[in-house]
Amino acid sequence: MDAIGFFESILGKNAVLSDSQKDHYGKDYTKNFTIKTLCAVFPQTTKHVQDILKYCYENKIAVVPSGGRTGLSGAANATQNEVVLSLEKMNKLIQINKTDRTLRCQGGMVTKEVQKLAEENGFYFPVDFASSGSSHIAGNIATNAGGIKVIRYGLMRDWVAGIQVVLPNGELLEMTNVSVKNNTGYDLKHLFIGSEGTLGVITECVLKLTSPPGELITALFALNSLENVTGLFSLAREEKLPLSAFEFFTTEALAKVQEHTHKKSPFAESHSHYVLMEVEKGEGGESALEKFVEIASEKNLITDGVLASNSVQSQDFWALRENISESLSQTSTVHKNDISLPISQIADFCKNLDLLLKEKYSGFEAVLFGHIGDGNLHVNFVKPKSMSSDDFFSHAKKADTGMFDLVKKYGGSISAEHGIGLTKKAFLSYTRSPLEISLMKQIKKVFDPQHIMNPGKIFD
Amino acid sequence: MDAIGFFESILGKNAVLSDSQKDHYGKDYTKNFTIKTLCAVFPQTTKHVQDILKYCYENKIAVVPSGGRTGLSGAANATQNEVVLSLEKMNKLIQINKTDRTLRCQGGMVTKEVQKLAEENGFYFPVDFASSGSSHIAGNIATNAGGIKVIRYGLMRDWVAGIQVVLPNGELLEMTNVSVKNNTGYDLKHLFIGSEGTLGVITECVLKLTSPPGELITALFALNSLENVTGLFSLAREEKLPLSAFEFFTTEALAKVQEHTHKKSPFAESHSHYVLMEVEKGEGGESALEKFVEIASEKNLITDGVLASNSVQSQDFWALRENISESLSQTSTVHKNDISLPISQIADFCKNLDLLLKEKYSGFEAVLFGHIGDGNLHVNFVKPKSMSSDDFFSHAKKADTGMFDLVKKYGGSISAEHGIGLTKKAFLSYTRSPLEISLMKQIKKVFDPQHIMNPGKIFD
Repeated sequence: MDAIGFFESILGKNAVLSDSQKDHYGKDYTKNFTIKTLCAVFPQTTKHVQDILKYCYENKIAVVPSGGRTGLSGAANATQNEVVLSLEKMNKLIQINKTDRTLRCQGGMVTKEVQKLAEENGFYFPVDFASSGSSHIAGNIATNAGGIKVIRYGLMRDWVAGIQVVLPNGELLEMTNVSVKNNTGYDLKHLFIGSEGTLGVITECVLKLTSPPGELITALFALNSLENVTGLFSLAREEKLPLSAFEFFTTEALAKVQEHTHKKSPFAESHSHYVLMEVEKGEGGESALEKFVEIASEKNLITDGVLASNSVQSQDFWALRENISESLSQTSTVHKNDISLPISQIADFCKNLDLLLKEKYSGFEAVLFGHIGDGNLHVNFVKPKSMSSDDFFSHAKKADTGMFDLVKKYGGSISAEHGIGLTKKAFLSYTRSPLEISLMKQIKKVFDPQHIMNPGKIFD
Repeated sequence: MDAIGFFESILGKNAVLSDSQKDHYGKDYTKNFTIKTLCAVFPQTTKHVQDILKYCYENKIAVVPSGGRTGLSGAANATQNEVVLSLEKMNKLIQINKTDRTLRCQGGMVTKEVQKLAEENGFYFPVDFASSGSSHIAGNIATNAGGIKVIRYGLMRDWVAGIQVVLPNGELLEMTNVSVKNNTGYDLKHLFIGSEGTLGVITECVLKLTSPPGELITALFALNSLENVTGLFSLAREEKLPLSAFEFFTTEALAKVQEHTHKKSPFAESHSHYVLMEVEKGEGGESALEKFVEIASEKNLITDGVLASNSVQSQDFWALRENISESLSQTSTVHKNDISLPISQIADFCKNLDLLLKEKYSGFEAVLFGHIGDGNLHVNFVKPKSMSSDDFFSHAKKADTGMFDLVKKYGGSISAEHGIGLTKKAFLSYTRSPLEISLMKQIKKVFDPQHIMNPGKIFD
């Protein structure tokens, strides 16, 4: 019996795709990769996953775990004729424990569904981002997803109480002890969070839940320098403002949104920088915000500001921020990067990036926006109209290395949220040392001595 | 040149102890272990640590890292003629970054000093416990310390932005990228947190700082069952009470404190259970607490309660909780355990523990107290007066295995805060699976192929 025959024998014929549709499951949001898959399989139980992996391990067949395929690093791309193991049919709720405030489910549950179940039970699951309607919860864990609430609630890592993993050889690794305190040897769970499917398949997870947030106040501020953006953030923390978002964008980003969506800015004049802020109203949020605006004005950190007077206006403000990425893609040819820096280094980094682009890539426009409260910058190079696409992308790649040199110099990361996968593999050494990479490779060998799990990714 | 000669040549004669004083540095708070050390060395720089470890690695000499020696698991005990590497002289501040809210220091800085430096700079470092005046910050990281503020601020793990580690072969592993978001491969840092000195020596760390808490309200409640204790905790979370502590103790624990310290209970009558609660006053804490007490009374969760009217009374309440451990040791012969459970399982676990003790160890009194908001119970077996010490400890060890069976059944941990070290090594399998232990051993080999770092600890 060949591999496909074996998978059909344990899963049924309908749960194995070997025709042209199979490639669909071996591809994430990235473009420019040639997808090549052996087949796509759709297990429904942890036992199925164990049987599939055991077979692949014994027959040295490579496997790519596949979730909602919303990744932006190519980590879920199959390019070497791998078996694509989709968790699409493993989307069941297992248990909600109201006392422990946990939700246990299979790894293929869609993020939005987790959020909905939490809400229906009087709780809140705070990891959220644009693709939460498609992304799988185990995919979020495998990429340590971030999103728009990190400043208040942290990363995916902070919301994982436990995981169940099937190792490449089919063995079951239960790390679902959900005691808050458990100092009994190495915490293996954290190795899997952010491992991009290279160590095993996350079949179940126990997620932490929290209380729903109260009412939120949305404010949009206009500023005249990046120093003032980071200054405003420092002030917000000094004043203990209960921030739930602190997003920033430049006048160039706003211009793209206006060009594409014809949405209006609430400000009469144009300003170089904007900050979108969300504050929890609570008992003291409103008065704290008033005091904060007063001090920010006195210190000349802000040049203008407007508070959303209702939820429609709040949505309008958010739309300016949330439409940047799509507006850029629709109006221009762009080359994207997702970097992060210590907050204290952002202003200096940006000054030097500006210099670099002016000196060496004078035609490039750099459109900046991001979750600046987490030090996370989305840097978009925009193709000048006069330049060919080929020239632009080849120049952009060169500009990347210059930018990554600066990221390294200022102690930042070449991938804040998206991970390394295939797209950033060549640049890993800008953020991780040769010793770290060597240790990663040796740890990979401990879990996957046959080298079948998602080969060719991260450092491989 | 022998080992001691080599260490003297790089550190100076004063920084190497080879006389009878050396054993002092190879011993933590535990008793009943025979300490045997080759020498104690006192490096001042990371380079010193590299040179020492390189020499030991090449000559296959075992090394025990030594901090404030306040551990309770024997993890810092040298019993096999090891070199004790003390970080006592590596206690320098390196940098406080007010924008990034981080403090970088050498690993031997005392926890209290970290707290003091944070405070002097307008910040707060929230990891705190009884031994913070002696414990070293790198020791806290190596044991993933907990303490009295976990319910509000989490464990040590949550406050480590980065660490610098010297590997057993002397190589320097810098994991001090402090970007909040950094998804670039496996997070190796988390392997070292809680590794009890078995993977390398933590020479420097970057700690996260936060804003100081506001004024606190202390309340002491009397309850008549353990179900009501966990019920009260659930209510506190439902009502979003800004808790900074939720401690519990039994009438037996209070009796020991009263016997030893002659402190008075604020209640006229005796009650079976007590909860000590601390709430952040903030803008809405006081009214939230009032509402909470009202509902708790209506639901018959509490039978009495008293709010501290000033800081002296607050200290009096805390003294009742904080004196339990010492009062027990001073008034009785005790056998201690530090376990944790999912909150939802505590009441059932305790019922069954009670049954177990009544059935098989009828003379034993079990005195319970702990950080119940984290599911953390300190279980103390007290020697009956009529029993010999030898008999008591041999019975207590048997009772341990019965209790650990229950811990396993209810999904808890045999070591909440203290770690495994030497004292719990034989019981590791009650909380971690054979597969997990096997993976830990293989990971240990990656970092320490010569097997020189703190041998014989955790699973070894």
